[in-house]
Amino acid sequence: MTAIRPREFLMIPGPTPVPDEVLEAHAKHPLGHRSQEFSQILDEAIEGLSWLAASENEPLILTSSGTGAMDAAVANTINRGDRVLSLVCGVFGERFAKIATAYGAEVERLSAEPGNAIDPEKVDAALKKNAGIKAVTITHNETSTGVINDLEAIARVARKHDALILVDAVTSFGAAPVEIDGWDLDVVVTGSQKALMLPPGLAFIYLSQRAWNSYESCTNGRFYLDLGRYLKSQKEKTTPFTPNVSLIRALTASLTMMKADGKESIFARHRKLREMLRKAIVETGLKPFVEESCASPTITSILPPEDMTVPEIRQRLKDDYRIIVADGQDELKGKIFRIGHMGYVFERDIAMTIAALQNVLDRRSSSSSSSKSASLR
Amino acid sequence: MTAIRPREFLMIPGPTPVPDEVLEAHAKHPLGHRSQEFSQILDEAIEGLSWLAASENEPLILTSSGTGAMDAAVANTINRGDRVLSLVCGVFGERFAKIATAYGAEVERLSAEPGNAIDPEKVDAALKKNAGIKAVTITHNETSTGVINDLEAIARVARKHDALILVDAVTSFGAAPVEIDGWDLDVVVTGSQKALMLPPGLAFIYLSQRAWNSYESCTNGRFYLDLGRYLKSQKEKTTPFTPNVSLIRALTASLTMMKADGKESIFARHRKLREMLRKAIVETGLKPFVEESCASPTITSILPPEDMTVPEIRQRLKDDYRIIVADGQDELKGKIFRIGHMGYVFERDIAMTIAALQNVLDRRSSSSSSSKSASLR
Repeated sequence: MTAIRPREFLMIPGPTPVPDEVLEAHAKHPLGHRSQEFSQILDEAIEGLSWLAASENEPLILTSSGTGAMDAAVANTINRGDRVLSLVCGVFGERFAKIATAYGAEVERLSAEPGNAIDPEKVDAALKKNAGIKAVTITHNETSTGVINDLEAIARVARKHDALILVDAVTSFGAAPVEIDGWDLDVVVTGSQKALMLPPGLAFIYLSQRAWNSYESCTNGRFYLDLGRYLKSQKEKTTPFTPNVSLIRALTASLTMMKADGKESIFARHRKLREMLRKAIVETGLKPFVEESCASPTITSILPPEDMTVPEIRQRLKDDYRIIVADGQDELKGKIFRIGHMGYVFERDIAMTIAALQNVLDRRSSSSSSSKSASLR
Repeated sequence: MTAIRPREFLMIPGPTPVPDEVLEAHAKHPLGHRSQEFSQILDEAIEGLSWLAASENEPLILTSSGTGAMDAAVANTINRGDRVLSLVCGVFGERFAKIATAYGAEVERLSAEPGNAIDPEKVDAALKKNAGIKAVTITHNETSTGVINDLEAIARVARKHDALILVDAVTSFGAAPVEIDGWDLDVVVTGSQKALMLPPGLAFIYLSQRAWNSYESCTNGRFYLDLGRYLKSQKEKTTPFTPNVSLIRALTASLTMMKADGKESIFARHRKLREMLRKAIVETGLKPFVEESCASPTITSILPPEDMTVPEIRQRLKDDYRIIVADGQDELKGKIFRIGHMGYVFERDIAMTIAALQNVLDRRSSSSSSSKSASLR
């Protein structure tokens, strides 16, 4: 292996590439979390997260993975014995169902086949059939398959049936519209290491007034993930426990960049990356796993060719180009590979990845029938 | 205010100073957490944490504050209705009691006056009086007052009464002996931003076989803080959720430095800093808040002079010298100030802080009677 190689490039669904401006803010020596300086940083971070969400709901900042905030979404609104409808079209939808089960909820699942989105009409039918569902859990963008669900329509159905809607927006928030107030979403969760262009270690959660009303009658044992503690502290411009001050400082740097570009421009870039990538995949002779209509703007799943395995493709991309793409998860392991394009990713990165992929495909064993041109040769 | 000023120096009980070697590791671009490279880093971190603890118990790495791991200590071993004895000699002892209460435990408190340690004989008496206590919670080093408890003796008492002992070692672990196996401790919790010389954002927790037995019969709703998930994943050299990869990489850098010096040398340095600081405090005419016998090796509380307030002292140290010291907490706010000396702190830092403090005291209003020499004048 040569010593001088290109930097590793993360085309995976998180951790994602981090801009130098953000890395530099993250690299600074920590400051005291009870200082006035930190209160100002926290304030700026909260203000920026509010701007990004276009919501009146206070964004709460947790030092945890995104799953910590998904846990908090359930732990603070759902009691043991409550009925929950979990919409499952992949690993992360299933994770939400498992969290609800872990808290003793009676969980009904409405599943879609991997690669498909949840049908809002089926949600309507399920809520009609199962009276007394307190909450619906949904993964907005299902990272394990590359599907984006029609959150607006599903939220409307949940509202019609007077159910709370708890949203895992970990891999959509900041890359695609998540209209918290406009779509009347009750709990929305996201993480730092996706479209927000930060290293992993922070999660964010927004609660509606309806969700806070459920909080008031919530009896689950909880302390670190008790969201009332975060709300109370943030009103006093501080945090209940020692937060990850480095990441919160980095967050202000990331939000400054996002504000300068504007949400519409960022969302448009992600849509364009999806279109560019899907078009190129077809041109290489491969097939996207997901139909156009529900294809994610942040992650694209691809079926491997018959004569090359997913591990081979990933290894060659890594060894020859230091480009990291993801395998499928669980039942899709080895059946698809996934290219992340969320956050700090641009047209040139898609072009580079596609060229590398084309070259990897062209260099298959001589039995291969593919001989498309590749810009890297 | 001048533009060229000394760097801010954190003489607070966390976040603490971070060595450049650790900051540099922390500053690197994140890597994918499902990569072989990260598995190796994780392995090295776990190996180092095992060395530091001199324990067979697997150290579990949580992406959370130390309080997250305190929560997990309770959430994974204590059921609703279980009886818990909480030893309280300050804010963090009280926090452990509150966590147990939040999980529905019946909590008895054994309290010591602020500035005093818990008396092991009183623990023995309390456990005799209250039959059926399942667990004892204790803060090894009470950060809010600067007291270190006799953990070895208290653990022996808990063992005698067949109670689990859950230990908050957040501000002692890595700076003073915490003999997990030798003292037969059931759950030991610590955080990254203290003696481990890292930024905040990670917590570590060690469970004994007895604690895992309690885990097996534990019925609390939990998911993100479900420690079984971490144990299972770590056995497969991975993590259950996206961890803070930057901090885990930094941890390996910190542990490399700690290994090179050896535990005994590090513990001796902390004892020496305590002695040096206490002696100097008396020489300035001030009084330590805590008696020698239970004085913490990582944080020293000081009573202010009659003619100068704690906020004034802190502000002057900050404005004139950019040295940050802490106020008291809760009922001790304004009554003491606290100088942290945990982790990446040395004799020269104590000398600097003392000289600055002496100068601040000497410059009091002319009504002041103090006129000790100060090396900064």
